[in-house]
Amino acid sequence: MTDQNSSDRDSRHKNRMERKKAVVDAAIAAATDTRGLLLVNTGNGKGKSSAAFGVLARALGHGMQAGVVQFVKGRSDTGEEAFFRRQPEVSWHVMGDGFTWDTQDRSADMASARAGWEQARAFLRDPAIGLVVLDELNIVLKYAYLDVQEVIADLQARPPLQHVIITGRGAPEALVEAADTVTDMGMVKHAFKAGIAAQPGVEF
Amino acid sequence: MTDQNSSDRDSRHKNRMERKKAVVDAAIAAATDTRGLLLVNTGNGKGKSSAAFGVLARALGHGMQAGVVQFVKGRSDTGEEAFFRRQPEVSWHVMGDGFTWDTQDRSADMASARAGWEQARAFLRDPAIGLVVLDELNIVLKYAYLDVQEVIADLQARPPLQHVIITGRGAPEALVEAADTVTDMGMVKHAFKAGIAAQPGVEF
Repeated sequence: MTDQNSSDRDSRHKNRMERKKAVVDAAIAAATDTRGLLLVNTGNGKGKSSAAFGVLARALGHGMQAGVVQFVKGRSDTGEEAFFRRQPEVSWHVMGDGFTWDTQDRSADMASARAGWEQARAFLRDPAIGLVVLDELNIVLKYAYLDVQEVIADLQARPPLQHVIITGRGAPEALVEAADTVTDMGMVKHAFKAGIAAQPGVEF
Repeated sequence: MTDQNSSDRDSRHKNRMERKKAVVDAAIAAATDTRGLLLVNTGNGKGKSSAAFGVLARALGHGMQAGVVQFVKGRSDTGEEAFFRRQPEVSWHVMGDGFTWDTQDRSADMASARAGWEQARAFLRDPAIGLVVLDELNIVLKYAYLDVQEVIADLQARPPLQHVIITGRGAPEALVEAADTVTDMGMVKHAFKAGIAAQPGVEF
């Protein structure tokens, strides 16, 4: 590439970026509302829970306190639990006895879900808690172990600046409607499908 | 619901879950390979970087050391940076001067990308580093500030047990091919589009 070509390309880049900046700046100027957000991470791909735990780290970096309830917990040796239990600003609760196909016990799963929701509700009534993570709650709602309208009513009654993140496959439509930000984590490919075992530090 | 109905429902649930457990157990038994994974988080929705930072927390919970390079960094007040800089097992590097539409300077962006890749390469040659996070690298590749084949060659030459996560919109096809797990974070809805400003602790 000659110097002239490179200089032309730099100049075209600058023009394009000036136009892009105007669009981005206008969108930022239009976004002025400040309040607690309800986020939902759903879909069949990897990243629903890990994105929630990344936001948790982010919130701690801003000095917030946080509460976590893990529903339908399948194992007790996860890195996220070990790591975040060390953080004094995090209150961590595991309410569940494993995947539904491991417990095979609907009544016990329903009782665990109810106990989990009582803990979640305590967080949702506490304005000192800046972020509430409700991990795998969508699964509990999918199996109708909790009533989605009751859950949404409690979410909407929370303190106005409190953020909530809900994860799990199959988010119910009513919850998607109620949320501010919804991401569908789509699986393009997954190592597990290629015969690679769940790796500590990545999958749990 | 009568007790008889409830008992029938519990019993059907148990049968369904027994069948599901057999399928899941067979998949777990078939997944025996153990090695470092290459993960790519792409798409237009929220959660690409936060999922990487959640996996970072997970890895720290398993006692790993980690290296982070943030390319194309748009702001210096993020919660993730404040939080993870407090963790002695994390080496955190910001290599970039902001979004391309803020710098509007292609030559400077290319130099930053090159410096970022030199740091990334140092991590990719260090078997003591269990996880490498290359945040927004996809953007750098999309603008061709780095050569994707050079990047893939360095990734493939890394220590066999080291995990790598790459984030950003528009992951190049060659990188998707080379990856073990790829998630497309699809935007169902986003608070920013509804006029809500980026909230500290959630968006940064």
